[in-house]
Amino acid sequence: MRTRAAVALEAGKPLEIMEVNLDGPKAGEVLIEIKATGICHTDEFTRSGADPEGLFPSILGHEGAGVVLEVGEGVTTLKPGDHVIPLYTPECRECHSCLSGKTNLCTSIRGTQGQGLMPDGTTRFSMLDGTPIYHYMGCSTFANHTVLPEIALAKVREDAPFDKICYIGCGVTTGIGAVINTAGVEIGSSAAVFGLGGIGLNVIQGLRMAGADTIIGVDLNDDKAEMAREFGMTHFVNPSKVDNVTEAIIEITKTDQDQFGGVDYSFDATGNVQVMRDALECSHRGWGVSVIIGVAPAGAEISTRPFQLVTGRVWKGTAFGGAKGRTDVPKFVDWYMDGKIEIDPMITHKLSLDEINEGFELMHQGKSIRAVVEFT
Amino acid sequence: MRTRAAVALEAGKPLEIMEVNLDGPKAGEVLIEIKATGICHTDEFTRSGADPEGLFPSILGHEGAGVVLEVGEGVTTLKPGDHVIPLYTPECRECHSCLSGKTNLCTSIRGTQGQGLMPDGTTRFSMLDGTPIYHYMGCSTFANHTVLPEIALAKVREDAPFDKICYIGCGVTTGIGAVINTAGVEIGSSAAVFGLGGIGLNVIQGLRMAGADTIIGVDLNDDKAEMAREFGMTHFVNPSKVDNVTEAIIEITKTDQDQFGGVDYSFDATGNVQVMRDALECSHRGWGVSVIIGVAPAGAEISTRPFQLVTGRVWKGTAFGGAKGRTDVPKFVDWYMDGKIEIDPMITHKLSLDEINEGFELMHQGKSIRAVVEFT
Ligand SMILES: [Zn+2]
Ligand SMILES: [Zn+2]
Ligand SMILES: [Zn+2]
Ligand SMILES: [Zn+2]
Repeated sequence: MRTRAAVALEAGKPLEIMEVNLDGPKAGEVLIEIKATGICHTDEFTRSGADPEGLFPSILGHEGAGVVLEVGEGVTTLKPGDHVIPLYTPECRECHSCLSGKTNLCTSIRGTQGQGLMPDGTTRFSMLDGTPIYHYMGCSTFANHTVLPEIALAKVREDAPFDKICYIGCGVTTGIGAVINTAGVEIGSSAAVFGLGGIGLNVIQGLRMAGADTIIGVDLNDDKAEMAREFGMTHFVNPSKVDNVTEAIIEITKTDQDQFGGVDYSFDATGNVQVMRDALECSHRGWGVSVIIGVAPAGAEISTRPFQLVTGRVWKGTAFGGAKGRTDVPKFVDWYMDGKIEIDPMITHKLSLDEINEGFELMHQGKSIRAVVEFT
Repeated sequence: MRTRAAVALEAGKPLEIMEVNLDGPKAGEVLIEIKATGICHTDEFTRSGADPEGLFPSILGHEGAGVVLEVGEGVTTLKPGDHVIPLYTPECRECHSCLSGKTNLCTSIRGTQGQGLMPDGTTRFSMLDGTPIYHYMGCSTFANHTVLPEIALAKVREDAPFDKICYIGCGVTTGIGAVINTAGVEIGSSAAVFGLGGIGLNVIQGLRMAGADTIIGVDLNDDKAEMAREFGMTHFVNPSKVDNVTEAIIEITKTDQDQFGGVDYSFDATGNVQVMRDALECSHRGWGVSVIIGVAPAGAEISTRPFQLVTGRVWKGTAFGGAKGRTDVPKFVDWYMDGKIEIDPMITHKLSLDEINEGFELMHQGKSIRAVVEFT
C-alpha cells in the first residue's frame, strides 16, 4: 500500500512530506493507522544529526496512537479495530530481560530496532523508487500508517482520545514512571525536578500522585513556574537567581529535626550533565535517590566525587519511566480517563502532517509543551 | 589517668609511642581498655597526610575491641566489664538519620567527631605538657585506653577473642555489609569484586553467605587469587592480562539465555576512580548495581556516560557496610563465633604497640591482609 509520511531524508534537513510504499505486516507484525503523534525532543535529537546512531532516510516519530488495520500471521493478542499505542520499548514477556522481573528494557528485538529494521532484518517502508526507508525506535509514527511487532503495541480502551493519549507513548509515561517505577517515591517525600518542560511537568504530576509533600521545580525560565504549580510544584528555584542551586534546594528542605537538608528524590529532565550532577548533590545524605531521565549529548559524561555516593546517595537512570509497555500503558490511559493524571493542558499545539516542521520549530523556541500532529 | 598510645604528631611521620594523659568519661561517655586493634588503610590515609581533613597531633586507630572500665553519668546500656567494639559510625537511635530507617549514617555527633573532638567539643587525650591530642574517627584505638560516647560502642559477647573481632570494627563489617545491607544480593546472583585485599576478601565471603553463584575477583596481583578462592571466589581476572577488564567479566557471565552478560552486582574495594567506573560498566544492563566501598584520593572524581544509568545500572556507595553498629556488630560477632564467617586467616600479623609502625610498613608492602596490635 501507499501512505503519507514525513520523511527525514538527511540529518539536519526539515522533514519532507511525501507518499511512501508500506508493505503489509509479516508474521508477528501489525499494520496500524496512526491517528495522532506527538513531536518529542528525541525526534529532534535524531533529525538534527546530533544522534550518532541516527539513520537516514527514516520516518521518525515514536509517540503515537492509532487503530489496528490488519494483523500478520500468528498475531493473537490484537485484532483489526483495536486501539493501540506503539511502544519503542517493547514487552515480549519471554526474553531474559523480561523474565528477570528487574527491568522494563526488553531485549528481544533490540538489535534490529537499533538498526532501523523490523525483527526480520528488513524495512516495511520504501521510497516510491524502491529505496528502503528506515524505521525509527521501532515506531515511525510520523506516517499515516506504520507496521510494528505485536510485542511493541499496547492495547488501550476505545473511548480514549488519540490526540491526548498519544503523549502516553513517551512523555507522560517517562515522567510519571520515573517517579513511581524507578524512584519508588513514598507519601510525604521531598523532591526536586530539574527542567520544567514536558517531561518535568509529568514528573511533577507523578510526585503529586505519589503523595510527595515538597516538590521543588528548577528552571532557568521563570515563565515555566506557573504551569508547574498547576501540576503540583510547591517551590520554584531559578538557578540564575541564586548563588548555588544545590544549596538553595537544601535550604528549602531543612527543618528543626533535620539540620542537613536535601531532597529525598531528585530528577534530571534536562539532559545537561552538569545539571545531573547538581540533581545528585542536592539529594539527601544517607538516602537521596537521583534519577537521570534526560538524554545527554553524544560523548558527554557525568561526574561527581565518590564521597557523594559513599555517604548514601544513589544515582540511577530511567528509560520509558521503567514502564513495561503492554502492562503499564493501558493503566496510564485509564488514569487519564479517570482524571488521576492530566494531559490536556500539556497539548499546547495541534497540527496537520503538512505542518510538522512548524511543530519542531515551536519546540525549538520553547513555545510548545507538546505539539501533536493529527491525521485526518 | 595516664595511658600508652601511638601518637601521630605530624602528617607523614611515623607514629610515636608515648605516655599520654586521658581524662575520665564525662556524661554519656565510657572509658575502655583496648585489647586489640587492626591497622587499616584509612589510618594510613590520614597518617600520610593524604587526608585533607586530617588533624594533628592525634591518636589514630578505629578498628578495636576492648573492655569497659568505667561509665560516665547517665550511661545505662553499658557497665564495667562489658566487652565492646568501638564504632566510628555511631547509632544513637534518636537523630533524624537514625529515625529515618533509611541509613546507618547517624548524624548525632558528626560535627564534633569530624573535628577530632568528643561531643562536648573537647578532647580527653592530651600530651604530658597539656597540649590536647585529637580523637580520630571518634575511636582512637591506637591507645591502651580510650574514651567513647555510649552511642559509639557495640556490646558483644564475652567469649569472642579480641584479636579477631577487632576486625569487625571496620573491614569485616564494611565488606560483608556492602553485600547484605547496601547491595542486597540475592541467592543465585553473579558479582564482581575489584581489589582482593582485606575489604575485597570480606565482600567475597559476604557474597558466599548471600548465596551468589558466580563470584569474580579482580586484582593486578595473581598471588591474591589463592586466598580469595578459599573465601568463595569462583573466577579470577587480572586486568593486566586481558584486553579489557569489563569485557572479560561480561564474557564470563554470558549464557545461552543471556547474550548481553554483565554481573548483577559489582563492588569497588580499591579506591581508584577508574576502577569504580569499570565496576559500574561491567554490571548488567537493566539491573546491575555497583557499590563503591573504597576511599578515593582527595579531589578524585568518578565519571561515566549517563547512558550507563539510563539503561538500568545503579551506582551506590557504602560506609561501614551500611551497618547500624550497635544493632549489627553483635550479630557479626555471633556469625564469627558460629563459623558462618571467617576472620582468622585474614589476621596475618600480630604486633605489640611498640611495633605499630612495622604494621603500616607491612600494609604498604602488601604483605599483610590485616596486622593487629595486641595490648598486653
Ligand atoms: Zn520521546
Ligand atoms: Zn522481552
Ligand atoms: Zn578502616
Ligand atoms: Zn543517630
